[in-house]
Amino acid sequence: MATQIENWAQQIRAGDVRALSRAVTAIENRAPEAEQLLEKLFPYTGRACRIGITGAPGTGKSTLVDRLASCYRGQGKSVGIIAVDPSSPFTGGAILGDRIRMQGLATDEGTFIRSMATRGYLGGLAQATGDAALVLDAAGKDMILVETVGVGQGEIEVVRLADCTLVVLVPGMGDDVQSLKAGLMEIGDIFVLNKSDREGADRFEQQLRAILDIVPGRAGWKPPIVRTVATENTGVDELARQIALYRDHFEKAHDRPARELAYWKEWLLRLLERRLVERVLDKRISDTEFEALAAQVAARKKDPYAAVKEILSRAGIS
Amino acid sequence: MATQIENWAQQIRAGDVRALSRAVTAIENRAPEAEQLLEKLFPYTGRACRIGITGAPGTGKSTLVDRLASCYRGQGKSVGIIAVDPSSPFTGGAILGDRIRMQGLATDEGTFIRSMATRGYLGGLAQATGDAALVLDAAGKDMILVETVGVGQGEIEVVRLADCTLVVLVPGMGDDVQSLKAGLMEIGDIFVLNKSDREGADRFEQQLRAILDIVPGRAGWKPPIVRTVATENTGVDELARQIALYRDHFEKAHDRPARELAYWKEWLLRLLERRLVERVLDKRISDTEFEALAAQVAARKKDPYAAVKEILSRAGIS
Repeated sequence: MATQIENWAQQIRAGDVRALSRAVTAIENRAPEAEQLLEKLFPYTGRACRIGITGAPGTGKSTLVDRLASCYRGQGKSVGIIAVDPSSPFTGGAILGDRIRMQGLATDEGTFIRSMATRGYLGGLAQATGDAALVLDAAGKDMILVETVGVGQGEIEVVRLADCTLVVLVPGMGDDVQSLKAGLMEIGDIFVLNKSDREGADRFEQQLRAILDIVPGRAGWKPPIVRTVATENTGVDELARQIALYRDHFEKAHDRPARELAYWKEWLLRLLERRLVERVLDKRISDTEFEALAAQVAARKKDPYAAVKEILSRAGIS
Repeated sequence: MATQIENWAQQIRAGDVRALSRAVTAIENRAPEAEQLLEKLFPYTGRACRIGITGAPGTGKSTLVDRLASCYRGQGKSVGIIAVDPSSPFTGGAILGDRIRMQGLATDEGTFIRSMATRGYLGGLAQATGDAALVLDAAGKDMILVETVGVGQGEIEVVRLADCTLVVLVPGMGDDVQSLKAGLMEIGDIFVLNKSDREGADRFEQQLRAILDIVPGRAGWKPPIVRTVATENTGVDELARQIALYRDHFEKAHDRPARELAYWKEWLLRLLERRLVERVLDKRISDTEFEALAAQVAARKKDPYAAVKEILSRAGIS
């Protein structure tokens, strides 16, 4: 088993696409071998630049990610793309395969593309994506693009691990002001105004600028607004240039260590939680007992705080 | 202290608005007294009907919630509204106060309205909202409307506790098919096509119907599509009627106990996690030690799995 994992890790480090893909699947399924694999790969990580791309559905993120990846390929960099797909148990993401567009890139050896389903698993999305990025990092990808659909909490958490976060907006989508709402304003390091050939783009840029002006800048960085029309490949080079400027800026500001530290504290906490709950629920309390307690709570025969106290005391933890 | 909490609980049960509001704030801040309060209120919960309302920004959810609340008030029911606002530390939700519109309702004694900020707190959103709903339930509100912005994982989790979930869609918002993507299709018990006077509404309804037709119905319920124009109060009575039909259907199907059980299992698990981590981190490992371990991981001097093993062994848990 140990040798198998060792071989797998070596294949990944050599950039083997099938080995990479199996690793992402193992992470998605939270298979035990995923942990063993990450343990092996971990020392070889920490080199890649991770770019998070987020925004509401319909903003053209996927196209933008394609173009940006092509741009980096043109610069001779290898690219890994993780597209977080909050798809459902029943569709399995299969109804709407917008990643099909990416087939041009998929046949390019320097680019690895994988979508990750979240399968309604709360909180684990950020961890799973982070672990997949570690695998791509160990595989030697220079640039890792993590694309998330949506504007929710889980998605925001996903991009928090990124070295640079792009927020994609589109003029005239629903109520303009509303689209700026959902906590996106302070996670954006660079704002991309996609479909910027649409009517109302100037007005929208002004609104956005006005809001960004009151955001306290981090370490002297003022988030730029880059106008793109991804479908026509307009503005993508400028976007790559701004990302490079951003990285230079923070290289000098020594910001990455602080971000990394915060990320790993969170990561350790999550793993610690999982381990502790496993210890208690697998070894001290049977599923039946746990379910019986939950049923008493649901029937209002016991309050939930008392139920948890009972579990802890049965597990010998006071 | 115990008497203070007791008084507070009594004020809440009497429907005192300031006591209610203080409770929601305590839950938001995860103050220790929030737990003590919930312990007291818990036996008086389980009576309210909780309706979750979700959808992307700009779909007009807030207006719809206002109208639905007015409709229930017209039926003599008391209403509690929780608007989840994934706002940011720096805006505090203050930039864009769309709840101002609700002032008409706010002066009505039978309606309690509160927005809850999420403050970038992963995973806790669902629990905080659930706890706030318990408080409103104990306060005797008949209908609790929980509105979430966005289509992300956290938001989906929030509505999972609801007795009935409305998914709000709008024709012609971005790519139609994309808006249907983000895991919303199987959480919707009723689909609301708002702004249905817009061009393309018929085509959109057809697309939606086609997708819903392949969703396996739950307990024989086929999610209806209700067309509304919330700003003109069109279709809102029909929506309330469909919600009532839904409740009748599942009253007969005895579905609520199963949902409640699943909800409380999840809730107990989360509290157990928190308690266990508190036990270990507060009592066995100092913040400095924990931070030092995370720093070693960030510097790739230790792998994260080994770090967690070390924490567990120091805490005497093998």
